[in-house]
Amino acid sequence: MSRSIDLAVIPGDGIGQEVVAQGLKVLNAVLPEDVKLETKEYDFGARRYHASGETLTDADLADLKAHDAILLGAIGDPSVPSGVLERGFLLKLRFAFDHHVNLRPSRLLPGVATPLAGQPEIDFVVVREGTEGPYTGNGGTIRKGTPHEVATEVSVNTAFGVERVVRDAFARAQARPRKKLTLVHKNNVLAFAGHLWTNVFNKVAEEFPEVTTDYIHVDAATIYLVTDPGRFDVIVTDNLFGDIITDLAAAVSGGIGVAASGNINPSREFPSMFEPVHGSAPDIAGQGKADPTATVLSVALLLRHLGYDDEASRVEEAVSADLGARGDSTRTTDEIGTALAVRV
Amino acid sequence: MSRSIDLAVIPGDGIGQEVVAQGLKVLNAVLPEDVKLETKEYDFGARRYHASGETLTDADLADLKAHDAILLGAIGDPSVPSGVLERGFLLKLRFAFDHHVNLRPSRLLPGVATPLAGQPEIDFVVVREGTEGPYTGNGGTIRKGTPHEVATEVSVNTAFGVERVVRDAFARAQARPRKKLTLVHKNNVLAFAGHLWTNVFNKVAEEFPEVTTDYIHVDAATIYLVTDPGRFDVIVTDNLFGDIITDLAAAVSGGIGVAASGNINPSREFPSMFEPVHGSAPDIAGQGKADPTATVLSVALLLRHLGYDDEASRVEEAVSADLGARGDSTRTTDEIGTALAVRV
Ligand SMILES: CC(C)[C@H](C(=O)O)[C@@H](O)C(=O)O
Ligand SMILES: CC(C)[C@H](C(=O)O)[C@@H](O)C(=O)O
Repeated sequence: MSRSIDLAVIPGDGIGQEVVAQGLKVLNAVLPEDVKLETKEYDFGARRYHASGETLTDADLADLKAHDAILLGAIGDPSVPSGVLERGFLLKLRFAFDHHVNLRPSRLLPGVATPLAGQPEIDFVVVREGTEGPYTGNGGTIRKGTPHEVATEVSVNTAFGVERVVRDAFARAQARPRKKLTLVHKNNVLAFAGHLWTNVFNKVAEEFPEVTTDYIHVDAATIYLVTDPGRFDVIVTDNLFGDIITDLAAAVSGGIGVAASGNINPSREFPSMFEPVHGSAPDIAGQGKADPTATVLSVALLLRHLGYDDEASRVEEAVSADLGARGDSTRTTDEIGTALAVRV
Repeated sequence: MSRSIDLAVIPGDGIGQEVVAQGLKVLNAVLPEDVKLETKEYDFGARRYHASGETLTDADLADLKAHDAILLGAIGDPSVPSGVLERGFLLKLRFAFDHHVNLRPSRLLPGVATPLAGQPEIDFVVVREGTEGPYTGNGGTIRKGTPHEVATEVSVNTAFGVERVVRDAFARAQARPRKKLTLVHKNNVLAFAGHLWTNVFNKVAEEFPEVTTDYIHVDAATIYLVTDPGRFDVIVTDNLFGDIITDLAAAVSGGIGVAASGNINPSREFPSMFEPVHGSAPDIAGQGKADPTATVLSVALLLRHLGYDDEASRVEEAVSADLGARGDSTRTTDEIGTALAVRV
């Protein structure tokens, strides 16, 4: 294990600045003294876009590539047309660094409110494919703006891309106590992609005889997520279905205030990126109201990815303890971050 | 208004048989004496497929076309490979009869259990496009079964197809007390289709100045459906997003036991089809355990479509009253149907 971490920090827009500061505070507090943490801050997002028209250049990518990992707050602002930063920064980075494992754990922690009745047990992780599906930008428009416009979106799925993420998900399921993996797709309608996913899934399953498997259509999966979320252990799914069900998963397991994610390149050829699932929330930005918990949990994912398993667990335990003790207290972003830094 | 109804009845598989019988019982009970109801039963589904290999022939379509409307129970059985009946019957019929308005109301009725805490108010309707998007079967596979397989799915969106369903949704919103319409899409990522949908939506909005509009990404929509479902009045969305969010909508508003749907061709060039959202539930088939309420509510949609507004309202009121009085009673499929027939 390397005893130094060279981290790229992208606070981004809105509350991104505030929550990332707390993530770094906790990271500094949890790391052993002999681990040298170096950080370099990058000013991506709306400000940079307005100043220069740039979202993410080749030179930026070369700079970022040199780091061990990336911590991101949030990117997005109402002053930028919808899609520009999403596609020009977030998706561009996922594709450039081949972040094919988009990891999104859902755990309903003690003391956390859920919109579901009866405080069900929730502890699963979604492995969302991050570089294929309808996110590739394939497709186009003809006769734009006329009554005869036709717009297409092409979902691209390759055996290479599906197999590597399915294998990653099986390995994660194998390492968990329940050892269960659910494939979520819509193979009864999207038969071309559905056949590929189902076939690869069944083939890789043979390498993991201890893992129990099942298959659920994406529409039915949303039902289970609200009526029986405890049935899930690990879910593997495509880019678009993963986008949809992880927002729902975050909502039922305590809200996007506590939902963490990792955009992971398991080969480590490129740095992986860790970020809260929530956005930049411009309506509450700069007021110290944002909950940094999702960012702190993303720091735990970052630590585990870099091999600091004990430190990752300590961060997660600190968050659990803090949430359990929270009650009705309203604390500022900074106070929550400090409380977590003290606990780790 | 025609004083006769010529109805095609497709009980289908599993519990389809049982629930359709109750739907017809209620339909007979609610219709005024001078309305002549003629029904013809069709044996589509797994049995027919096993006997003849056929799912829906051109001759079948010609037969069905002659009716005023179609009532369907459920199609699907584990003995038939996944996708065969879905694509060979259900989707084939939607496309052949140009059922472009897929209407799925969600109302949390008094006395009905919801997985959400605090029994929120829910009363909205989803207008799902039914003939485009990724449901067109466009796409394909190369190098099938090899490590170099590539499978694509093409979502096809036309100004013609989007505009007619968006206009239908605006008209429905206009006719409701809250007059609110939400477009659900993913226009920040699926930019080609997203631009078409957003553009057409904004253009048609000018014709409906009384309707309040907003836009939500599909992932965020799943969050609102569990944290604030009361915010929705009418939703319009594409075929795949509609498939996903209507299952979630059904789950939060009392479950698929009470979720009705209409596959509507507003031009009446072809008969529209009405069906419960639930499937054939082979595990409980033939045991009198299925709840026929979703089918009975589908009959109400059918009545309204054919211009029998008073009768439709009476069926809906009977269902509300029955659900409110249900308590813990366990009644058979037949008993529930009879109770509803008595109330209308
Ligand atoms: C902002 C958007 C591009 C992104 C996505 O769709 O992947 C977001 O919704 C997410 O889930 O990370
Ligand atoms: C059975 C399947 C083809 C269908 C769909 O995806 O439309 C179903 O899920 C539905 O919502 O009616």
